[in-house]
Amino acid sequence: MTALVNQQIVLASRPAGEATVDNFRLQTSTVDPDALADGQVLVRIHYLSLDPYMRGRMNEGRSYAQPQPLGEVMIGGTAGEVIASRNPNFAVGDQVVGMGGWQQYQLVERHQRGVLQKVDTTHVPLSAYLGAVGMPGVTAWVGLHTIVEPKAGETVVVSAASGAVGSVVGQLAKARGCRAVGIAGGPEKCAYVTGALGFDACIDYKAHGDLKSLARALKEACPDGIDGYFENVGGVILDAVMLRMNAFGRIAMCGMISGYDGQPIPMANPALILVSRLKVQGFIVSERMDLWPAALKELGGMVASGRLKYRETIAHGLENAPEAFLGLLKGRNFGKQLVKLV
Amino acid sequence: MTALVNQQIVLASRPAGEATVDNFRLQTSTVDPDALADGQVLVRIHYLSLDPYMRGRMNEGRSYAQPQPLGEVMIGGTAGEVIASRNPNFAVGDQVVGMGGWQQYQLVERHQRGVLQKVDTTHVPLSAYLGAVGMPGVTAWVGLHTIVEPKAGETVVVSAASGAVGSVVGQLAKARGCRAVGIAGGPEKCAYVTGALGFDACIDYKAHGDLKSLARALKEACPDGIDGYFENVGGVILDAVMLRMNAFGRIAMCGMISGYDGQPIPMANPALILVSRLKVQGFIVSERMDLWPAALKELGGMVASGRLKYRETIAHGLENAPEAFLGLLKGRNFGKQLVKLV
Repeated sequence: MTALVNQQIVLASRPAGEATVDNFRLQTSTVDPDALADGQVLVRIHYLSLDPYMRGRMNEGRSYAQPQPLGEVMIGGTAGEVIASRNPNFAVGDQVVGMGGWQQYQLVERHQRGVLQKVDTTHVPLSAYLGAVGMPGVTAWVGLHTIVEPKAGETVVVSAASGAVGSVVGQLAKARGCRAVGIAGGPEKCAYVTGALGFDACIDYKAHGDLKSLARALKEACPDGIDGYFENVGGVILDAVMLRMNAFGRIAMCGMISGYDGQPIPMANPALILVSRLKVQGFIVSERMDLWPAALKELGGMVASGRLKYRETIAHGLENAPEAFLGLLKGRNFGKQLVKLV
Repeated sequence: MTALVNQQIVLASRPAGEATVDNFRLQTSTVDPDALADGQVLVRIHYLSLDPYMRGRMNEGRSYAQPQPLGEVMIGGTAGEVIASRNPNFAVGDQVVGMGGWQQYQLVERHQRGVLQKVDTTHVPLSAYLGAVGMPGVTAWVGLHTIVEPKAGETVVVSAASGAVGSVVGQLAKARGCRAVGIAGGPEKCAYVTGALGFDACIDYKAHGDLKSLARALKEACPDGIDGYFENVGGVILDAVMLRMNAFGRIAMCGMISGYDGQPIPMANPALILVSRLKVQGFIVSERMDLWPAALKELGGMVASGRLKYRETIAHGLENAPEAFLGLLKGRNFGKQLVKLV
């Protein structure tokens, strides 16, 4: 083989308010599979994972993660195949997941231990390792187990319920004997949440223009109140859920996508935390690496046996990644948003 | 003895906005110490405890406690002496604490087990059982132990730091090897907090008119950030503290006095719960009765040995209870607010 052209997307500028395609730039580099240094592995990326957290990293300033550096390849999870290796742990043809970023080829150095994980695609498709059996699935598992801690018979609500994280939250809650109620945008997503995913109810937030209306819908969908809430969205949805939380309810703060674009969105009535003796806790899945093996084992088993359903929205070609990402931020995706490169 | 006149204060009306003396009404009833039924105990109340939670109960509508019923004696903690008894568990002269309410005499029925607790005033003054060695002290202990869980070397901040709860929070945090930082209103209270109480620093919130100024003062007083926060106040103070919380910080929500009078006060930036992976949790001390014995043992020992300091503001005469209570809501008290009846 001769040197390969490696298309890459870098962060060109930071968004002022809403992110746009102009914040990204396509560039090319080259990589020569025949000229690997000792210990290097070259991966051809088949799928990019697009995730809401990436929007947070596009901003400068304090967040839990380092900001995405300007002019560098957008960071992100990837799944692909080893096409060249001078590392005894990886062979050509191995299916792997890693943090390859928004590019066609990922060159892994010898010292980057743990960056690449071999995966078994016999019973679980490669792309699922970026969704239900990957970071989003583990996020659902960790938030549910360490913060929401649902008991059988309790009611668990999750926002962005048709998404990569939310869909797993509800299905895991159902598997633990809970009433699972989703919140999603539009009748099609809601039908999927209660149909294919088996949630007990789903509220279309787009059909409810204000706090009161949303709170009323939650009351109807959750006749026994809400014991656990898995928050992916923030804003008025959080306010409405808080009004319906039972005493000693638990709220796992996983995402606040509604506030990424501008000024912080306040919580309307924090005194409810006291009145209802709530626990509201933020978490980041990458800080609970100790739980990943148990989570992946359960999630992989459930996907392999067909008990854990998921859906993917797939964009094609690296050049379409920015557009697909912006669509994700607006909820235009349906399930896990991927970009297929091969 | 003949029948005694029992002055009582009842809730006459619910506040519309700020509470006023007109919300209360003085009335009298009689009680005959010579005509007790079998099992009854009659207590002469020496001290009423005035506490911020009472303001919440004056409102109608959903809260963690039943609203104070209109036309009935204001509920509240009391300390006094048994003056007549037909109950083998209590003798005339016993010093007792209970929930006698805003009145001069408390008649306890035989079936009201656990309502009266005998206390030992050899080393601990009777009034302290309404403060540092009573509900406020246990509130500090429970919030600190079950939610803030401070480790030696960490920084713990508490609002209303010179008050009955806050003063104990900081002294317990110090005893556990933490840096204790108070927030209080005015230079006199702050001097007391750092002087007599031994906190490491105290911020006068009245000297800081906005969020930025308050956050700057917190940065100065907490050079290593804030690991634990004990919230008695809410509003802008909570917002400022949240800006300075370290990753994995814990916030115990004990009181939100700033929002009792009217519309809920929002939390400016709840996304910080996610960004800093905070745990924000509300609690009510009466729901952790299992912890009272251990808490009272430690607090009683510390008061008896002089290691736990406290201060009292004492109003005299039942008729002055409403005025004293309204002063407490405005922070005019200094330390534990009591009404002395005898």
